[in-house]
Amino acid sequence: MNTKNLIDQIKKKKSFLCIGLDVDLTKIPQQLLKEEDPIFAFNKAIIDATHHLCVAYKPNTAFYEAYGLKGWQALEKTIKYLNENHPEIFTIADAKRGDIGNTSTMYAKAFLEDLGFDSVTVAPYMGKDSVEPFLAFDDKHTILLALTSNQGAFDFQTKTVDGKELYKQVLETSKSWQNSKNLMYVVGATKAEFLADIRKIIPDSFLLVPGVGAQGGNLQEVCKYGMNENIGLLINSSRGIIYASNSEDFAYAASNAAKNLQTQMANLIG
Amino acid sequence: MNTKNLIDQIKKKKSFLCIGLDVDLTKIPQQLLKEEDPIFAFNKAIIDATHHLCVAYKPNTAFYEAYGLKGWQALEKTIKYLNENHPEIFTIADAKRGDIGNTSTMYAKAFLEDLGFDSVTVAPYMGKDSVEPFLAFDDKHTILLALTSNQGAFDFQTKTVDGKELYKQVLETSKSWQNSKNLMYVVGATKAEFLADIRKIIPDSFLLVPGVGAQGGNLQEVCKYGMNENIGLLINSSRGIIYASNSEDFAYAASNAAKNLQTQMANLIG
Repeated sequence: MNTKNLIDQIKKKKSFLCIGLDVDLTKIPQQLLKEEDPIFAFNKAIIDATHHLCVAYKPNTAFYEAYGLKGWQALEKTIKYLNENHPEIFTIADAKRGDIGNTSTMYAKAFLEDLGFDSVTVAPYMGKDSVEPFLAFDDKHTILLALTSNQGAFDFQTKTVDGKELYKQVLETSKSWQNSKNLMYVVGATKAEFLADIRKIIPDSFLLVPGVGAQGGNLQEVCKYGMNENIGLLINSSRGIIYASNSEDFAYAASNAAKNLQTQMANLIG
Repeated sequence: MNTKNLIDQIKKKKSFLCIGLDVDLTKIPQQLLKEEDPIFAFNKAIIDATHHLCVAYKPNTAFYEAYGLKGWQALEKTIKYLNENHPEIFTIADAKRGDIGNTSTMYAKAFLEDLGFDSVTVAPYMGKDSVEPFLAFDDKHTILLALTSNQGAFDFQTKTVDGKELYKQVLETSKSWQNSKNLMYVVGATKAEFLADIRKIIPDSFLLVPGVGAQGGNLQEVCKYGMNENIGLLINSSRGIIYASNSEDFAYAASNAAKNLQTQMANLIG
């Protein structure tokens, strides 16, 4: 999917909501465990109930790898279901990969080509030749970790490197990489006050913003500092939506939680 | 496996060789493609031919994810085969994972508990709470990226942070994390001259050293600067061993290539 299609969808739905499909079998309604594929059954129910309210879905691969073969199969079924039934929706493999060049190429092929995701999250520590293989795919996007939502972000990301914080160096440096037009960035909602500075470096890029909800980030603050003329934000909520209820009404509750965020977003889009 | 078992094995075999099981179906002998599971068949043949010459095997997860379900299945079969037939051998899931705390826990469970690897490689960018979930497992090891073997290592890792290169900050900071005794570090063989400084910070830790062979690193240089009294090194070779031949004699050729490195190592151990 190209960026224009994403922007069009945001304007049409008055939403820049991304829903994190992080399925933990101990947290889903227990009647689903009787299904042949409980993870996919849960995802399908969540997607069916929320797809008109969000513009993106983001399965985090950790939650699928934790269930081995069955988890990987559920991931394949989920992305296939999305691509077949909701091709307008932007899909993110939250995989945080990154390796030497020939190995990154294998990851890029796996997520962007074979599984058919629109984008994949990538860690910057190994530098240019670990990220460029992901950038080589037309109309696909690489979402580079810049400033993450967790406490550990202060261990290295905010430390000063040659007179500038490391996450700013990552933003600056990545702009010079081949096909950098395909870059988006992860910036945690828990660090909304950093967004004004970030926008000075990358005014036009889309930001994937986790941390609203369970992690305590504030939607209004994020928009105040991070929104650009094309909105330029994908705000992710995972647990706050998909585990809004663990009873039989879970899909309805998820839809309500998504509607609540979408309504706030519609107001913020104005 | 605890560190003492690893050291004992190194002394017994006079080897600190790690073999990277990075299976690319376009590079393996084409008669193997007739097998039901070509990836596992290849790995099994390599393991059977080389297990007496090395102390560790390191499948890189990218090469398995690239083949989807079949790849994941081959990874499961490979680690099961190793654990059942060669429990003395140290196993490394080269996954370069790392995420916010509850998500890193899922990855740690997947690789260290469910798949049963002895260790997993982890990226440091997200800091303490992204790494500590991996460190929580007794007699399991977390191999943190410090200074990688690729050119992109010079983009951020060698940049000066608060008066010290980022990779040195990673080494220093990680020593204060909970269960840091379970840490090992990745240091590329292509940067052997950095090892003397690294040993000043982490004299006792094991280092996983990729980059000997196809990437151009030099074994003698690595040992000169990086070896400690317990050897403290796992030197990885992937392509140089597993693709020593792509004919029917591939396992024999791999064994010869491994023997060549092991003989050099025996001399270096002295």
